Amino acid sequence: MNKRLSGKPIAKKIYKELNERILEKKEKPKLVIIFIGEDPAAAYYVKMLEKKGRKIGIEVVTKKFPVQIKQKNLIDEIKKLNQDKTVHAIMMQKPLPTHLNEFAIILQIDPQKDVDAFHPINIGKMVLGKDSFIPSTPAAVLELLKFYDIQTSGKNIVILGRSNIVGKPLANLLLRKDQTGNATITVCHSRTQNLVKFTQKADILIAALGKPNFVSAEMIAENAIIIDVGINQIEDSEKGTIYVGDVDYEDCLGKAASLTPVPGGIGSITTAILLRNVVESAKKVKNSNNFIDGIDKKNK
Amino acid sequence: MNKRLSGKPIAKKIYKELNERILEKKEKPKLVIIFIGEDPAAAYYVKMLEKKGRKIGIEVVTKKFPVQIKQKNLIDEIKKLNQDKTVHAIMMQKPLPTHLNEFAIILQIDPQKDVDAFHPINIGKMVLGKDSFIPSTPAAVLELLKFYDIQTSGKNIVILGRSNIVGKPLANLLLRKDQTGNATITVCHSRTQNLVKFTQKADILIAALGKPNFVSAEMIAENAIIIDVGINQIEDSEKGTIYVGDVDYEDCLGKAASLTPVPGGIGSITTAILLRNVVESAKKVKNSNNFIDGIDKKNK
Repeated sequence: MNKRLSGKPIAKKIYKELNERILEKKEKPKLVIIFIGEDPAAAYYVKMLEKKGRKIGIEVVTKKFPVQIKQKNLIDEIKKLNQDKTVHAIMMQKPLPTHLNEFAIILQIDPQKDVDAFHPINIGKMVLGKDSFIPSTPAAVLELLKFYDIQTSGKNIVILGRSNIVGKPLANLLLRKDQTGNATITVCHSRTQNLVKFTQKADILIAALGKPNFVSAEMIAENAIIIDVGINQIEDSEKGTIYVGDVDYEDCLGKAASLTPVPGGIGSITTAILLRNVVESAKKVKNSNNFIDGIDKKNK
Repeated sequence: MNKRLSGKPIAKKIYKELNERILEKKEKPKLVIIFIGEDPAAAYYVKMLEKKGRKIGIEVVTKKFPVQIKQKNLIDEIKKLNQDKTVHAIMMQKPLPTHLNEFAIILQIDPQKDVDAFHPINIGKMVLGKDSFIPSTPAAVLELLKFYDIQTSGKNIVILGRSNIVGKPLANLLLRKDQTGNATITVCHSRTQNLVKFTQKADILIAALGKPNFVSAEMIAENAIIIDVGINQIEDSEKGTIYVGDVDYEDCLGKAASLTPVPGGIGSITTAILLRNVVESAKKVKNSNNFIDGIDKKNK
């Protein structure tokens, strides 16, 4: 196995597959991004989705709204997009202004077009091991495990962080009875006592807690596999604004069996996964008119 | 804390509260149980729900169907119950005959009437920490923790078993940021290597794997709290057919700080929880016509 688990060849492979799948179709998959306000990091991500999407043949349309938008108007907009059969996927770019009720809005998105997989019905299906969209960051971790042929069955996997979009979905996914599942899972977080006792025993340690360079060599086991999900913006006295992970890469390099870099690790796979969800949604929207009725029409 | 964590006073307390709540209302909450076939254990459970329900003022109607029922006819029946405003709660008694697609059927139940909390949207909301029904067995564990004032925050809780109705929901619930959450959670199962290394470190050990008397004294830590979710029917050479838990109670008695008996522990709370979900559903069905639109109408 490589020492450095780069995400780039994985993203490249996914883009290649998607491009081939799209070329076979008559209709271009279409993603609509709802973008409220002017957040620069969000704007950067949206620009990248537009660029990468265009490159492989996905139509990406960004609908911009002012921060003052009323919840009712936003929901009306979502309902229109749900109805529109030329739209296969809807993404609600975060952060949302604080006057909007994020959960109430997400509930309005047609689960079949919910490529972010934030709708509770998609989360529920994921937990139950049923076919569903999977949020892009946890899905990127699974892709990495597959690509580098990292065995999870029976392994002691420790996850740092219990967020709704990374830690919790990952815990549920790594428990499933499949190729990237069957692991013993421990979820640690800010309230965990004796954290190091857990991390030092992990065969695979996944850091998703959002603390720059938090994981040091003394916290990990000899020959552990370290997956770094964090992306933290920090000010470096020499280099200026830089991005670092939750893992102190240099410190852990000598002790870990292998580890993902930041940038160039998990983060470089997530955009590809999101666009793969768009291609999947185009297939689903075409095959059924109603998600809840449609997912299993086999009338046994 | 008591050595023996009996579930009976908890069930009694819940029934008392429910009875008082129901007496305040004009309309009786109504639960419809769909019961297919003749499974004796299922029939026993249904009889108990009918009896307990009647006692506290819930109308429990059991609709019986032959094992040959076609999926389409069953779904039509569910759709009628969804529409019927006098029906507040719908329960699909298991086991279902193998020719029926259980997941496709559960998807048809109005999530607002889904008191078993098997619908993926209810599971998803539970994972996200949103208000939702919670399956009765995991909810019974939380009630027990509350009743005996067992602290979970920062504690090392090990769950044995990863089922969709106990292990996985419990893991997600015990991670939430609330009174019975904030624990460090490890989920072990049939593929776990070195199981004893995990169980011996647990402050709280929850057994939900369905193996009679599996947990022995040497597997647990001194002064651990042991919660036994298992109910296994076995043949005893002297006593005949008896029910035992996943924990060897007698063996662990001297070493554990406290433990739940079987029977008389978690199992005796679950029926009360199910009926509490019925009372909750009566409130919800009355307050809104559409679950997804209705759960958060605050148009901030």
